[in-house]
Amino acid sequence: MIEAVYQLTGTKTEAQSLAEKVALEQSLEVPREIAEAAPLPEGTIGQVTGVTEHEEGWRATVQYATWLASGRPSQLLNLLGGNCSMLPGVRLVDVRLPDELVREFAGPRYGIPGLRKLLGIPERPLLCSAIKPRGVSNEQLAEVASAMALGGCDLIKDDHNLVDRSPQEFTNRVTQTQQAVQDAVSRTGRPCLYLPYLAAGPADWSAYLEAIEKAGIRGVLISPMLMGFDAVWHLRQHTDLILMAHPTLAGGPLLGTHHGITPAVLLGKIMRLVGIDASVFPNAGGRFAFTQDICMDLAKALRDPLGPGQPAWPTPAGGMSVNSIDEQADLYGPDTCWLVGGAMLSHPEGIEAGAASLREALVSRFGDQRTDSYDPAVSACEMPEDIKDPTTIQHILKRLESGWEGREAIAYKSDGALPFHGVKRFELMGKSDEPMSFDVRYFELDPGGCTSMEKHQHVHAIIAAEGKGEIEISGNISTLAPQDLAYIPPLAVHQIRNPDSDHHFGFYCIVDRDRDRPQAP
Amino acid sequence: MIEAVYQLTGTKTEAQSLAEKVALEQSLEVPREIAEAAPLPEGTIGQVTGVTEHEEGWRATVQYATWLASGRPSQLLNLLGGNCSMLPGVRLVDVRLPDELVREFAGPRYGIPGLRKLLGIPERPLLCSAIKPRGVSNEQLAEVASAMALGGCDLIKDDHNLVDRSPQEFTNRVTQTQQAVQDAVSRTGRPCLYLPYLAAGPADWSAYLEAIEKAGIRGVLISPMLMGFDAVWHLRQHTDLILMAHPTLAGGPLLGTHHGITPAVLLGKIMRLVGIDASVFPNAGGRFAFTQDICMDLAKALRDPLGPGQPAWPTPAGGMSVNSIDEQADLYGPDTCWLVGGAMLSHPEGIEAGAASLREALVSRFGDQRTDSYDPAVSACEMPEDIKDPTTIQHILKRLESGWEGREAIAYKSDGALPFHGVKRFELMGKSDEPMSFDVRYFELDPGGCTSMEKHQHVHAIIAAEGKGEIEISGNISTLAPQDLAYIPPLAVHQIRNPDSDHHFGFYCIVDRDRDRPQAP
Repeated sequence: MIEAVYQLTGTKTEAQSLAEKVALEQSLEVPREIAEAAPLPEGTIGQVTGVTEHEEGWRATVQYATWLASGRPSQLLNLLGGNCSMLPGVRLVDVRLPDELVREFAGPRYGIPGLRKLLGIPERPLLCSAIKPRGVSNEQLAEVASAMALGGCDLIKDDHNLVDRSPQEFTNRVTQTQQAVQDAVSRTGRPCLYLPYLAAGPADWSAYLEAIEKAGIRGVLISPMLMGFDAVWHLRQHTDLILMAHPTLAGGPLLGTHHGITPAVLLGKIMRLVGIDASVFPNAGGRFAFTQDICMDLAKALRDPLGPGQPAWPTPAGGMSVNSIDEQADLYGPDTCWLVGGAMLSHPEGIEAGAASLREALVSRFGDQRTDSYDPAVSACEMPEDIKDPTTIQHILKRLESGWEGREAIAYKSDGALPFHGVKRFELMGKSDEPMSFDVRYFELDPGGCTSMEKHQHVHAIIAAEGKGEIEISGNISTLAPQDLAYIPPLAVHQIRNPDSDHHFGFYCIVDRDRDRPQAP
Repeated sequence: MIEAVYQLTGTKTEAQSLAEKVALEQSLEVPREIAEAAPLPEGTIGQVTGVTEHEEGWRATVQYATWLASGRPSQLLNLLGGNCSMLPGVRLVDVRLPDELVREFAGPRYGIPGLRKLLGIPERPLLCSAIKPRGVSNEQLAEVASAMALGGCDLIKDDHNLVDRSPQEFTNRVTQTQQAVQDAVSRTGRPCLYLPYLAAGPADWSAYLEAIEKAGIRGVLISPMLMGFDAVWHLRQHTDLILMAHPTLAGGPLLGTHHGITPAVLLGKIMRLVGIDASVFPNAGGRFAFTQDICMDLAKALRDPLGPGQPAWPTPAGGMSVNSIDEQADLYGPDTCWLVGGAMLSHPEGIEAGAASLREALVSRFGDQRTDSYDPAVSACEMPEDIKDPTTIQHILKRLESGWEGREAIAYKSDGALPFHGVKRFELMGKSDEPMSFDVRYFELDPGGCTSMEKHQHVHAIIAAEGKGEIEISGNISTLAPQDLAYIPPLAVHQIRNPDSDHHFGFYCIVDRDRDRPQAP
């Protein structure tokens, strides 16, 4: 059962009637006499379970059956606050979610403990800044990022106005910035993660994600109110990126006094539910309208236990400076990611000095304990690229005696985790940003060679082409002769082998460009 | 230059200062001294061009350089009302867009004239209803749709709470409803279009679109505030679907008195810009908070000239009944799509009678002139499916002497528009809702056979497999022998031929599942 709490205006009778109206509007949206005439499954209509007096009017609790959320973040939001967003005097102020739904959404992949491990910072708050200003060259943006990393930022995000017109522009910009941050990291020896702004739509989604993966970038900044919560959840499910959320456009519901949604619900519980690791919000005392109470409620919603998901980082923006650190630290405590923009950019001795002074202030208050930064295992089938230069688009790829004109074989070496041997790969199409949503690869197994025994969410379409091989899918073994196809379903454990002692076995393998990494069986 | 008009609170001095704050916040988001110190391209910072007194406070006009919108709807919204949504006392009340941007976004594909042609209704308002309630069986939902179509609805949309848990559930439900509507159409002889609710996320987007295409459905209902405006624009660019927008969740910005965005901008100009053909909004006098003035401003924003795009249908919901028709018709005029829910569903003689009475009321006021409904040409390469039953998922597809086990060849017949001959197709993978973003097909050209000379936005990955063929891409002819590959770029005119007089030429063709239809060269 999902429980929503709405703050309502009017007399008690009006509030009770408004609560009934909301419960019906949000669940079934038909006149009550029709709702009551039709034989409907249990729980189709929301139930008002209580209306109590509250300092700002009335609070009504409405219960909705969990199945009404259809297991989708966007539908959950629609159920809780969709149509009733247009009813004056109705504000969504709290939501309690059943464990089954929280488990279904899973929550942040990293959250507070995960980012602490990745960065090797076990105790103190994190320091984050934003690359600005829009309008300068990629080189200048990379220099800003470099200064922030050298000065001591733990996270560096793009300004959320850094929106490129094409995947190619994005790739050029973020690759350059990532390189600058990596160079700074190798100079300071302190981890620092760069989070570019992912402002992609369905048409170029996979091209942006590929650029991010190729550049070795570990996370992104996103604007859930612009991108939609289903898209955020997709990133949580289908990538292993760190997700930081920007609140742009959220002011509509947030600033309502008698309508809309409170920050603790929209920027807190909902963000966390769909997998946001760090939720940015305007800090009290900054340029925007949030009070200290609002900020504290929001920080609590991000950190409090919520099913099996990790707690997420409250990421207040504004109001933090070397002078205010003690006061702010008393308020927010150590599990806080500080987003500092202006105070760092306008430091009289430059950005690096600005970052360093803030880092020192945090360290002197919280100490500088460090652990080894977590090194996630490199996975097996999607081995690290050895291609230095990307392949180029060719209209015709001529088959040679061995391989293809314009394509070089990539020979794999097993890293021990998921053993394989005698495997060569050719990237035939997709690696050159061709505007398609899949990659075409060719694998050649030496006599006796085999791929890793592994599984992953994404599926394979295999087309056998040369020689004879065998494939094992979920324990079933089949032979593959030229022009046979194999489909490997999601999470099916599989391996492809060449049992022949004399000949190669060659096959095409076509996969979604946007895909997860392989796992051990 | 993009011009935004904000309504501001406070004294004139405060309003002027607030206007400057908005202009900087929305464009560059750095302290002014930094903005002024950096050498930035012309127009990087928004410019306040005037602050004038207005009955509700002050109105400030701010100019932004067009390039700041990055040619993306979500970034345009971010620029106009993103961060400043969180500034109290700032409400976006108008926007004037330069022709170049309006042309880039293109606007509604059908709009008022296009839907009039499709439906063969040259003059009167349209009648639309919503299928309800959620919770009953697919058969019952189809019966509701049938009654609405028999009674005389022109458009029938899903309730926006009809959110399925999987593409398969969606496919079953909408296919059944579409069939019921089609049956009703063949009985009445009056066109009626069914618009299912597309609540898909990036993971299942293409599976939903495929189900829609397979069922012969011509349009969809979407919730732009949940789905994101870039996704809406993607539908406009990459499909030829009619797009109807639902305003759920939009109340946050809309209901603000001193913050947010006016309905005429958010549900009017922005919806229209991204390609919405019909924008649903709560009518004055219904369950929600819109006044008559608000509704008239919104209707005007949807219909007024805006670059080359078509005007869109104001689609008021609520307040329309047989008794109110004259009054409502005086207000809204003929270019209006009436969304009627409760009044139709609760008619004492049933839904069909409810729809009929409303249709008769419209016809008696506006006449019943009819034209032939427009029959859009069927396109060539993506020929209509002859497959009655979908293919099934097979882990192994064994190559037979001819064809594959479990797959039947589909023989094309040229429809004359884009001639071709001697072409057989096998759908090998993708047509069974395998969770992948591409389809794997195999084409076999008879001796002397050829595909259509055509072009399309989506690309082809071709892998030659049997015999020898030739391919023409943008006028360049190449031969293809087994294991040669060909990449056909976006909009390249192409044809594949089998010049051999004795042997077949066989090739795999892999394409994005979500793709546009072919066009004549």
